Amino acid sequence: MNLLELKETIREVMDFPKKGIGFKDITTLLKDPRAFKTSVDLLANLYKDENIDIVIGPEARGFIYGAPLAYLLNAGFVPVRKEGKLPAEIVSEEYELEYGTNIIEIHKDSITKGQNVLVVDDLLATGGTAAAAGKLVKELGGNVVAMAFLIELEFLNGRENLKEYKVDSLIKY
Amino acid sequence: MNLLELKETIREVMDFPKKGIGFKDITTLLKDPRAFKTSVDLLANLYKDENIDIVIGPEARGFIYGAPLAYLLNAGFVPVRKEGKLPAEIVSEEYELEYGTNIIEIHKDSITKGQNVLVVDDLLATGGTAAAAGKLVKELGGNVVAMAFLIELEFLNGRENLKEYKVDSLIKY
Repeated sequence: MNLLELKETIREVMDFPKKGIGFKDITTLLKDPRAFKTSVDLLANLYKDENIDIVIGPEARGFIYGAPLAYLLNAGFVPVRKEGKLPAEIVSEEYELEYGTNIIEIHKDSITKGQNVLVVDDLLATGGTAAAAGKLVKELGGNVVAMAFLIELEFLNGRENLKEYKVDSLIKY
Repeated sequence: MNLLELKETIREVMDFPKKGIGFKDITTLLKDPRAFKTSVDLLANLYKDENIDIVIGPEARGFIYGAPLAYLLNAGFVPVRKEGKLPAEIVSEEYELEYGTNIIEIHKDSITKGQNVLVVDDLLATGGTAAAAGKLVKELGGNVVAMAFLIELEFLNGRENLKEYKVDSLIKY
C-alpha cells in the first residue's frame, strides 16, 4: 500500500467538532489492517537508526501510534496525559487553545536526563500540544530527536510552533 | 523477562484516585522497553492463531495495548471512546459506575458482521467497561473471541460480569 492509497483510507467528516470544520477521521484507516500496519511501519522506519529510548504520546490518539512505535523501536512508552490522570509526581505544561487553555502532564520520573525521545501524535494541527510536550521533555532533561505525525494540516502552519524540532509527517493536507 | 519480573515493574501508588485505594500504576512498566515488549508479546501470542480481524480498546489506556496487539495480529484497531469524541455515526452503551454512570461509543461502521473481535484493556477491575464494550461489539454483529487484560484485580470479581466471554489476564492481584 503506497502513501496515496493510505491517504484514501482517511475519511473526512464535515462539521465536526463544529460547523465548517472538515474533520480528518482516521478510524477508517485504523480499522483497515493493511493501512494501519503500513502507517505504523512507515513511521517506525524513519527512526530505526536513531537510538530512541522513549516514545511519548499525548492522550488519547497519541497512544494509538505512540505505543506501536515504542514497541517496534525497542523503546519505552510514556503517556502524556490530561490533568489529574497520572498518579505519581508530575510536571505540567499549560498552553493556549483557540478558546481557553489546556494542561498536559507527564510523570517526573518518566524520562532520564540525556535519553533520546520521540514525540508521536496522530495529527499536527497548530502544534500547541506537541510544543507543550516538547517543553515537558526538555524540563526532564530529555533530548527530543524528532516529532512524528501521521497527518499534517499544512494550512495551519503547525511547524512554526515547532521550529526547534525535526518534524516528520506521512500525510499532508 | 518472566511474569514475576514483569509484575515487579508495576508501581503501587497509595490513595489514588482517592484515599484508601492502592492504584496499580503501569507507567513504570511501559517506560521499561523490555517490560513493555514482553507484556505486548505475551498477550499477542495468546491470539496468534485465532484469526482476529479487529482489536478494540477503550479510551484511553486501552489504546496503549490495543494498538500494538492489532499491529502484531495483522488486525484493524477500533477505538471505543467516551461520549462525543467520535465524528461519524455511533452506537453507544451506558453502564454503571460506583457513583453515577458512564457512556462509551463505537463507530457503527467499525465492525462488519461476523468479524472476530478481541477486546483489550490494561486493567480488569469490576468489568463494567469491558462488558459494555462486549455489548457494542455484539450489537454490530461481531464475534467476541476473547477479552485480554494486562492486569486483573481478582478481588473485584470482574469475571462475574464477563461470564459469557473468554477472559485472559497476564498479571493478577
